[in-house]
Amino acid sequence: MKNELNPLIQRIEPPFWYSGMHNPELQILFYGKNIGEYEITIENSTAITNIKRTENPNFIFVTIDTQNINTNEIDFTFQQKNKKPFTQKYELRKRRKDSALRKSFDASDCIYLLMPDRFANGNPNNQNDSNTSEKYNRDLPGGRHGGDIEGIIQNLDYIKSLGVTAIWSTPLCEDNETEFSYHGYAQSDVYKIDPRFGTNEDYIRLVEKAHQLGLKIIMDYVTNHWGIEHWMVKDSPTNDWIHRFENYTETNHKRSTVSDINASKIDRTICLNGWFVPTMPDLNISNPLVFNYLRQNAIWWIEYANLDGFRVDTYNYSEPEYIAKWTKAITDEYPNFNLVGEITMRNQSLLSYWQKDSAIAKIQNFNSNLPSVMDFALSDALQMVFNEDDDTWDQGITKIYDLLSKDFLFPNINNLLIFGENHDTRRLNHIYNNDIRKYKMAMIMLATLRGIPQLYYGSEIGMAGDQNLGDADIRRDFPGGWENDENNAFHPETRSECQKVYFDFTSKLFHWRKTNEAVHFGKTTHYIPENNVYVYFRYNSNKSVMVIINNNPENQNIDTKRFQENIKNYTTGKEVITNTKFDLSKTISIEGKSGLILELE
Amino acid sequence: MKNELNPLIQRIEPPFWYSGMHNPELQILFYGKNIGEYEITIENSTAITNIKRTENPNFIFVTIDTQNINTNEIDFTFQQKNKKPFTQKYELRKRRKDSALRKSFDASDCIYLLMPDRFANGNPNNQNDSNTSEKYNRDLPGGRHGGDIEGIIQNLDYIKSLGVTAIWSTPLCEDNETEFSYHGYAQSDVYKIDPRFGTNEDYIRLVEKAHQLGLKIIMDYVTNHWGIEHWMVKDSPTNDWIHRFENYTETNHKRSTVSDINASKIDRTICLNGWFVPTMPDLNISNPLVFNYLRQNAIWWIEYANLDGFRVDTYNYSEPEYIAKWTKAITDEYPNFNLVGEITMRNQSLLSYWQKDSAIAKIQNFNSNLPSVMDFALSDALQMVFNEDDDTWDQGITKIYDLLSKDFLFPNINNLLIFGENHDTRRLNHIYNNDIRKYKMAMIMLATLRGIPQLYYGSEIGMAGDQNLGDADIRRDFPGGWENDENNAFHPETRSECQKVYFDFTSKLFHWRKTNEAVHFGKTTHYIPENNVYVYFRYNSNKSVMVIINNNPENQNIDTKRFQENIKNYTTGKEVITNTKFDLSKTISIEGKSGLILELE
Repeated sequence: MKNELNPLIQRIEPPFWYSGMHNPELQILFYGKNIGEYEITIENSTAITNIKRTENPNFIFVTIDTQNINTNEIDFTFQQKNKKPFTQKYELRKRRKDSALRKSFDASDCIYLLMPDRFANGNPNNQNDSNTSEKYNRDLPGGRHGGDIEGIIQNLDYIKSLGVTAIWSTPLCEDNETEFSYHGYAQSDVYKIDPRFGTNEDYIRLVEKAHQLGLKIIMDYVTNHWGIEHWMVKDSPTNDWIHRFENYTETNHKRSTVSDINASKIDRTICLNGWFVPTMPDLNISNPLVFNYLRQNAIWWIEYANLDGFRVDTYNYSEPEYIAKWTKAITDEYPNFNLVGEITMRNQSLLSYWQKDSAIAKIQNFNSNLPSVMDFALSDALQMVFNEDDDTWDQGITKIYDLLSKDFLFPNINNLLIFGENHDTRRLNHIYNNDIRKYKMAMIMLATLRGIPQLYYGSEIGMAGDQNLGDADIRRDFPGGWENDENNAFHPETRSECQKVYFDFTSKLFHWRKTNEAVHFGKTTHYIPENNVYVYFRYNSNKSVMVIINNNPENQNIDTKRFQENIKNYTTGKEVITNTKFDLSKTISIEGKSGLILELE
Repeated sequence: MKNELNPLIQRIEPPFWYSGMHNPELQILFYGKNIGEYEITIENSTAITNIKRTENPNFIFVTIDTQNINTNEIDFTFQQKNKKPFTQKYELRKRRKDSALRKSFDASDCIYLLMPDRFANGNPNNQNDSNTSEKYNRDLPGGRHGGDIEGIIQNLDYIKSLGVTAIWSTPLCEDNETEFSYHGYAQSDVYKIDPRFGTNEDYIRLVEKAHQLGLKIIMDYVTNHWGIEHWMVKDSPTNDWIHRFENYTETNHKRSTVSDINASKIDRTICLNGWFVPTMPDLNISNPLVFNYLRQNAIWWIEYANLDGFRVDTYNYSEPEYIAKWTKAITDEYPNFNLVGEITMRNQSLLSYWQKDSAIAKIQNFNSNLPSVMDFALSDALQMVFNEDDDTWDQGITKIYDLLSKDFLFPNINNLLIFGENHDTRRLNHIYNNDIRKYKMAMIMLATLRGIPQLYYGSEIGMAGDQNLGDADIRRDFPGGWENDENNAFHPETRSECQKVYFDFTSKLFHWRKTNEAVHFGKTTHYIPENNVYVYFRYNSNKSVMVIINNNPENQNIDTKRFQENIKNYTTGKEVITNTKFDLSKTISIEGKSGLILELE
């Protein structure tokens, strides 16, 4: 669908654009040998508002005001002194109806995180590609295993059957690293799906099929860095396109330096501008050309692929002022669009700092504009507490109580992404040694605590893996995603007994969650844990849910009197997994290391 | 000096008051058998603005407008139906010049915390008293050991020689518990110094002598509770004077319930209204009579004893709205008066919540009005880090770096009380097994970090003590405070060699601190620790101090290049303890487990 390129132009980015955007300005990058030496004109000359040449003659950036363009195609005339001009067409497409006001994901959703290379190999013909260097090798733990978009499409029914409502896939754009390219975070072309995952059209098809099934698609966007193989890293428009140091300098990962009034300048600079790893050059988003490039690329994907949300990688490794501006540019275009930022901080005040309209960030007149942050404080606790059998002081389940007691720090607590694990953390089933009781407790809490729950592929069928053996072990291939896999966990009839137990519980739980708005946007009341038992309620004016988490290895009898202010006139609690009814006027007996979700009646 | 009481009146509180206060209202409590049945009048009848009788006829509360009183003495006429009236005189004293604008303690000070019963027995004649039940017994660890105000007065020269500038004594008012009364936190009469400590006049004398030596006096005020032996607990003006429960209910200590939007009402109520221990009834400060009583009592002591500040016990166990109002009432009277609240929380956002004008408390439209909070987050770290030899992740000295990186959360970081230990915590010399290297590191940090440093009596001569053996072991008698003590650490000539080493270091350090305003109110710049070495600078436009804490057991060579933004044009650093000069253009060598304070020149 892209316009054909004149032989003198190697790339145009964005490859096309849309009419009627909130921000009518469009900065088009033309790339070609000495293209910067040309004069560029269009018919309506007032529509070109800026032409920017850089120290690299292979680039020229042309800004047009799309409000002044009435056609669907613009003819750019390129004229070099004393030479014959040539023309390049550029397409302005029509937007989807209500594109700007698209809905996004929120606390009524449950997100399924998968890594496409490890999920399912739906198309065995795109294992390798002549333009990308790393080849298929499923024997290599950190190699490319062949999973692809087609594999996701073929298993959308499976995903839907789990009870989740949205998919977050790790990046799908081209990552042309020579090794470890499967994770996709070292992108080499951000306008193109990696050919080993499929085509741009495959991605569109994935979104369409998902939408047909009521599943949302969340793109994993990376603003902080590109891969060392990115074509604009190899031939950069400006010297400051990426942050460069005399010697290779890695980020110190101390993101607290951003808000720390005591931080030294050098520490803050190395945090923000140092590279993530040697293969991931750090983008200088404070350069207006870089900023526009990233802004437009993000918006292009939303508009082009009809996306439902972003997960933004390493969000606070970028210069705060500009990442905040980038975020605002996106929500200015799509006011309801949700973006969840990866803020790998455990301190709740610093996590809050990064959520839009944070009172804590306001101390420094900062506003990230970021609607959602990942709740790493909670995930840390979920990775520990069920192995802690007593709650003395701040141990055991009290850790979670203590976290929830600081919910007031967050401007929008329901818009926290809550999770027990992801592709960068240890796996719950490893930490809990596949003790399904503990898995269930974690899932019950994710399904009923405030926020947007996110599951990590494979755990729902009991998948484990030890991060100490390398990240590949927490990113194992989903059984059944490859032809000739001995075990296929995608289908009920081929699941092992053990997989069934995991899956059926998870599926029942998250299907139930969809039906109960009190756990989506209801209030929370919780009670100080006693004997490592934590009781909390989620409720709105219509519904009330009582959750009892017995983290004590022994059975406990719960005297309901203490909870009268929440039980009110309700008499019965129907457990949502077993359908057992509990008399709320009597003691509730609960097994050791288990949880109950009671819908009050 | 008090007016003589009519035989029908047992108590008048406040016993006298002052003219010309900012708040001209005074609520006088008259206590006597059926005194509530009397009509009360004074000559200028408009000066009585309110007369409040309660369900207990033994009380009557008379509010007068002192602006309408022109005399130094008020004659209250008490008239009972058909009986002969009687008169009771009440004195209105003149205030000290500039009383309202008195200065207080701040970050230029260093506070010495002592427990009077354990410091020095200056007056062997007040060991026992006929009106208080617990008798002198120095053999009992938790008994009364006889220390007193006279003992403090006799050792003011010692305290001054340590380099501190203020004294915080634990409470001195009467505590008539039958046991453990020595700590003074279960007060039975808050208008009277405990006779075993001395008289009200002795206290006045202590303040006067201290002021002559340039030492400030900080009173330990308790708003949350009284002792079970308090006369108004035994005969209360109202049933709700103290919080009562059907069965004895102890506080759950979860002060996070105060700000927790998810907290259950019952948990919050038990936190705030539950008793601290069975001998400490919880005061209902939301009762206006209680509020006024505590407000006036506090102001009375400031005015009467000419105090320099308050430390407020268990500050956030009181109903927040009213403790904030109480605090404001005091700073309305004395705008420069500093109060430091005991907020035993480790989370910095919750600590910040309790400091005046906190942006975090503002989320809930709350303002504690409390100028200073105790930095328990830092004290916890100081009690651990020097035993941690590596700084992987958040271990070792990084703990302190991480705390300082959140200084921006506090509205007034210089007004945090910083300490390594107090009478409720473990002792540094126990934790660090009397390894003086670690003691010195802790003291160097207290002397140079932002905030108001507070030392705990005895540690400066190497005193240890194990809290696991009971609180008495961290509250040992100061050697030399009792006649016939074998060792007298108060005087240089009788100190042991080991005590000398501790004392001389501490004294030199804190005498130096007095001279350097950069460590009082200067800015901080700190650098991410490397190899468990933490470097920070304190500086203002005139002075700059570089502090190097080597928490690594090995010697370290510090490359100064990294600190160029602070070293600027300075060339030399003079170490303040040894006077050694360091060339700032060269590597600085520092011994394992040690600290250097360099004044830059």
